[in-house]
Amino acid sequence: MGEQPRVIVIGAGFGGLYAARTLKHQAVDVLLIDRHNFHTFTPLLYQVATAGLEAEEIAYPVRGIFRSNTNIDFLMGEVEVIDRAKKTVSIRTNGAVRQERYDYLIVSGGSVTTYFGKPEIGDIAFELKSLDDAIALRNHILRLFERAAWTEDLAHRDALTTMVVVGGGSTGLETVGALRELYQHVLRKEYDALSPRIVLVEAMDHLLAAYPERLQQKALEQLKSLGVEVILGNAVDETAADHIRLASGEVIPTYTLIWSAGVQASPLAQALDLPLKRGGRVPITPMLTTEGDDSVYVIGDMAYLEAPDGKPYPMLIPVAQQQGTLAAKNIVHRLRSEQPKAFSYFDRGIMSTIGRSRAVAYLFNRVQVTGFLAWIAWLGLHLIVLMGFRNRINVLINWIWNYLTYDRSVRIILEPDAAKPKHADEALKSME
Amino acid sequence: MGEQPRVIVIGAGFGGLYAARTLKHQAVDVLLIDRHNFHTFTPLLYQVATAGLEAEEIAYPVRGIFRSNTNIDFLMGEVEVIDRAKKTVSIRTNGAVRQERYDYLIVSGGSVTTYFGKPEIGDIAFELKSLDDAIALRNHILRLFERAAWTEDLAHRDALTTMVVVGGGSTGLETVGALRELYQHVLRKEYDALSPRIVLVEAMDHLLAAYPERLQQKALEQLKSLGVEVILGNAVDETAADHIRLASGEVIPTYTLIWSAGVQASPLAQALDLPLKRGGRVPITPMLTTEGDDSVYVIGDMAYLEAPDGKPYPMLIPVAQQQGTLAAKNIVHRLRSEQPKAFSYFDRGIMSTIGRSRAVAYLFNRVQVTGFLAWIAWLGLHLIVLMGFRNRINVLINWIWNYLTYDRSVRIILEPDAAKPKHADEALKSME
Repeated sequence: MGEQPRVIVIGAGFGGLYAARTLKHQAVDVLLIDRHNFHTFTPLLYQVATAGLEAEEIAYPVRGIFRSNTNIDFLMGEVEVIDRAKKTVSIRTNGAVRQERYDYLIVSGGSVTTYFGKPEIGDIAFELKSLDDAIALRNHILRLFERAAWTEDLAHRDALTTMVVVGGGSTGLETVGALRELYQHVLRKEYDALSPRIVLVEAMDHLLAAYPERLQQKALEQLKSLGVEVILGNAVDETAADHIRLASGEVIPTYTLIWSAGVQASPLAQALDLPLKRGGRVPITPMLTTEGDDSVYVIGDMAYLEAPDGKPYPMLIPVAQQQGTLAAKNIVHRLRSEQPKAFSYFDRGIMSTIGRSRAVAYLFNRVQVTGFLAWIAWLGLHLIVLMGFRNRINVLINWIWNYLTYDRSVRIILEPDAAKPKHADEALKSME
Repeated sequence: MGEQPRVIVIGAGFGGLYAARTLKHQAVDVLLIDRHNFHTFTPLLYQVATAGLEAEEIAYPVRGIFRSNTNIDFLMGEVEVIDRAKKTVSIRTNGAVRQERYDYLIVSGGSVTTYFGKPEIGDIAFELKSLDDAIALRNHILRLFERAAWTEDLAHRDALTTMVVVGGGSTGLETVGALRELYQHVLRKEYDALSPRIVLVEAMDHLLAAYPERLQQKALEQLKSLGVEVILGNAVDETAADHIRLASGEVIPTYTLIWSAGVQASPLAQALDLPLKRGGRVPITPMLTTEGDDSVYVIGDMAYLEAPDGKPYPMLIPVAQQQGTLAAKNIVHRLRSEQPKAFSYFDRGIMSTIGRSRAVAYLFNRVQVTGFLAWIAWLGLHLIVLMGFRNRINVLINWIWNYLTYDRSVRIILEPDAAKPKHADEALKSME
């Protein structure tokens, strides 16, 4: 690294990636840090979990993205300490801890699943925050079907093929829709005797809280027409390995609980040693810096900033992207002794898909679209945003193939043998 | 299952798959058993290991292959006991043991890696026999590069990026070629300071034992032109986590030893309780039945049958395919009281690829082809044989993309969190 100011970007999610991209032709040295060596296109994790897409199709290697940018370096590791006084970041990498110095820091650690004070649910539940999660869920579902196919006890068999998704937001709807379609168009043909129950549980009395009422209603209708059982106004009260119990007392025997009921800021927020807002988010100024330390920017799901209407900006990808870009630009402004700019969110709208030809979209806070048109819009948008040309083509082919054939070709149970210790790994560990 | 004769096929490799396929329109009930729920296109495992193809592209779900065949059932599990007196097979599946009855049994368990009496090598070495192996190797290589990129000690850095492949057969050559290309066309651009050493070690004084001398020589030249270090006539004497030592005394510091020096019949052969031949293979009659029990067929890598020249048929995919088809046909012949047929191998030849535009082929035991032409022949053949239309298109796209851009888009380190115990799994285990 040369004599240029050094910007450390923590997190290669949408916020961090857009920040680094904005800095790639600027007179700064950038160090991008992530625990994975790839960026994950999180909106499609549910497709990997339901065997619609291959894992690698929604992952893009960070070094590949910035290959031609010599001012951007990458470090795979987990940030443990942020020392704002010394302006250093400590990263656990390859088993050792490494310290790196920054002039400016952009923290974009994203969010983690929250169980609202019931962490024991996390021992039972599957979540969909990472590629590992998605593959674990895919393996689990397919294994249960293999088991159910050879199970004579009918009650046990039904429990094996009952899948409960908790949370009536976008991810919940998408997951439940994809699960139902996976069964209806694929598994039904391969496991004659099985007839799974797919249940969506939402504590509030409506789905998709952020949408207008008409679209909430449409989404509910679309789910029901797909054969999904929707339980509204009923929270999960107790979870166990082989069942869940709802607040109403109803017990659902199941081995598959998928939790998409809520997220909170990454625990990395605590490393900043600042008072946090609701959801563990870090309060920031409109310029996206932390209050009292303008060399540290926090963006995306981790950041708490109130919109003009007084509500905090939602934890959405476009917010993270736009904040990532602005944080980077504001650093450049300051290096040029220009005035940094305040964040203003350009809201193109929100959309959720619920399976083939089923979706709802609420565009520019005005236009309501449902059904096939909304689904096409959803498809197009995601293909455009997907990182990398090749991934886009492969995803497109997979989607066209799935659409034309109602097939899912990724139904493989893939579990690298975790029990196989490799001496090389141990030798490397002992060196640390 | 009805009143039809029941055929159990063990193994969904090439032999078992062709056997089951041949039986799909016959008046028999087929139970196909495999420990995975998918068929693996093993000739391309090295491409997955070197980030050229996605794992799912070379795996095809067994239930999908036989979806429209109601007489073919599938059981995911591991065969533990074959009781030829009772005509039953015991399978460990979902943690329990299940017994299944057969009228005819086709055993196609394939082969496993052999370390020639030095099992301790297996603790150190990577192999390429399964999809798990390939992903484990890919993760390992990419992790070493990430580590090397941040390693200042030059000797340690060199050891981290030195990769040794043992075995000068097709798999060894393909792997070493793909590793070299992965570096030359991709990793070199992303890890400026690294300059890996790729070494091929072969105990004999020539490569590709089954090929004519001219092609052996050509293959050696092609490897060298690619920048691969080839060590002939030198065996591996000692392996450790951080180095290997050759018979000559030479020590190569490395954390990556890939073993493709030999295979032997699957240990399942021992379950048959018959005297075994060299390589643990089961001697069979020309009709492909075991000697003394003509309800049991053994095919593919597990079977020992001498060709007219007195040598046993090689452990090659076409042999397994042709034996699978014949074993199934012979069962049908016997059910119709017709005469079973003796095996005769139709040998189209052998080919090995050594990277872009580099390959050798020996067709019909006559025609010798090298270079670009052999490479095109290799590509075409593999695409034709790959199971499943969608897989073929995706693989083709990936290959064209790689060819045009010299890119590898699958360079992601993907390690499902093995430490995350899921209570559901435990609950299911405790039921067993």
